[in-house]
Amino acid sequence: MHKPLLYIIKVGGNLIDQPARLQSFLTHLAALTNQAAKQHTYQFILIHGGGKLATDLSEKLGITPQLVEGRRITDTETLKIVTMVYAGYINKTIVAQLQSLHCNALGLTGADGNLIRAHKRNHPTIDYGWVGDIDTVQTTLLQQLLAQGYVPVLAPITHNQQGQLLNTNADTLAQQIAVQLSTHYTTRLLFTFEKEGVLEDPNQETSVLPTIHAAQYEALKKTGQISAGMIPKLDNAFQALNAGVQQVIIGKAEKLPALLEGKAGTTLTVAHES
Amino acid sequence: MHKPLLYIIKVGGNLIDQPARLQSFLTHLAALTNQAAKQHTYQFILIHGGGKLATDLSEKLGITPQLVEGRRITDTETLKIVTMVYAGYINKTIVAQLQSLHCNALGLTGADGNLIRAHKRNHPTIDYGWVGDIDTVQTTLLQQLLAQGYVPVLAPITHNQQGQLLNTNADTLAQQIAVQLSTHYTTRLLFTFEKEGVLEDPNQETSVLPTIHAAQYEALKKTGQISAGMIPKLDNAFQALNAGVQQVIIGKAEKLPALLEGKAGTTLTVAHES
Repeated sequence: MHKPLLYIIKVGGNLIDQPARLQSFLTHLAALTNQAAKQHTYQFILIHGGGKLATDLSEKLGITPQLVEGRRITDTETLKIVTMVYAGYINKTIVAQLQSLHCNALGLTGADGNLIRAHKRNHPTIDYGWVGDIDTVQTTLLQQLLAQGYVPVLAPITHNQQGQLLNTNADTLAQQIAVQLSTHYTTRLLFTFEKEGVLEDPNQETSVLPTIHAAQYEALKKTGQISAGMIPKLDNAFQALNAGVQQVIIGKAEKLPALLEGKAGTTLTVAHES
Repeated sequence: MHKPLLYIIKVGGNLIDQPARLQSFLTHLAALTNQAAKQHTYQFILIHGGGKLATDLSEKLGITPQLVEGRRITDTETLKIVTMVYAGYINKTIVAQLQSLHCNALGLTGADGNLIRAHKRNHPTIDYGWVGDIDTVQTTLLQQLLAQGYVPVLAPITHNQQGQLLNTNADTLAQQIAVQLSTHYTTRLLFTFEKEGVLEDPNQETSVLPTIHAAQYEALKKTGQISAGMIPKLDNAFQALNAGVQQVIIGKAEKLPALLEGKAGTTLTVAHES
């Protein structure tokens, strides 16, 4: 069966805080969606993170971040703030900007249409507060919206179907969406961030590895050539690949068109491309 | 042509600030939507106002409300706050609560899917700031969502299609939605608030006028029997009726089932019911 091509793009923290860079990214995204819509080539879902706006607002309101064993806790006040900032300000700002670029964006959280059901994180020693780990993605709503030409823009807020909103990691959310939708679409997952891609030498922005396949990744981990900070991201990425996602691409948000063409960033695949 | 019945319900300020009353209202709404969905009798759109949460947050952040000729101005900081509070916190809290009651709510602003395009208010003497007056309601998205069984929950934030979000009066928004959708649905517009309905004697909660038709309204205005504060609301309501809305019902939010049955509140109609 021929499956339509779908890009699930996570746009991360740093960009959100920098209006000019965000605008540049959204302009690329809108141009690509409009071109792709005309040519019926592929579709997009955008997932955004939170940036520092939530932290800034907490500070202004005099809320002290709660830390347990060095981990940030989402207490009731913090949940209220991330809901306001992620689902309100950031989500609607992105949607309005995309709309001004004639991209038919539509913002959602995991609560809307029961899109993403999660549960409060269970952890043997740390109570993370209102942090949600994902149970199910209700893909019907996304399929309906995509079929009708909308570009879903998702904020990393989910719910437990018992009236509780939950703060959820945007990378994980993007990955889960990509995995769940891979039964209906050929899914490609893009993690965009401030770096050029996965670097062979962390201090050398030009040392981007253009592709990494699974076996090569294991070797690179053993030799210590992958920086420790990248390992969780890459482990997740390979999990997604093993669970049905066709490609994971990691690279700089402003290079979005080149990332899609494989001319920038790092493309992860399960096996060598034949 | 048989048009399906659609209730457009505006739930106002006071309720939003009182979790127990809001919960009671949402429980009624969810029960009605679930029953109506089974019997295919009617559908709902919910529109919520802002309550005092935005004012409270502004105060906490030390933002002084800007007043020009006694009118509240939506400056850039205030717009950010109302976007966070209305589109973020209130909208998603209502959606999550309805979802917990098995009502398939989906939250939107006017920017999402280009649902409601507005322009910055033009006024000869007052610059209201980022206040939006509605140009067009894009009814296709609402029709699609209703057909798919979702209950749209709208926050009173619109956009100008040039990237600018705008703060928009929730009563007006509800009215415009009802008018625009009246070509596709038999629309009934409910303004729920803290009072029992339109009172013949403002000091007497039991003096609710069960119905007012247009000619009667003109007479009541002349005799001064309608309180001055209600006149703009009622003028708007009769405008909506003249523009295709079948009924406007005004009454207490917690009495939602009785309001729908005409057993509580005030029902406004253009002409005498035959």
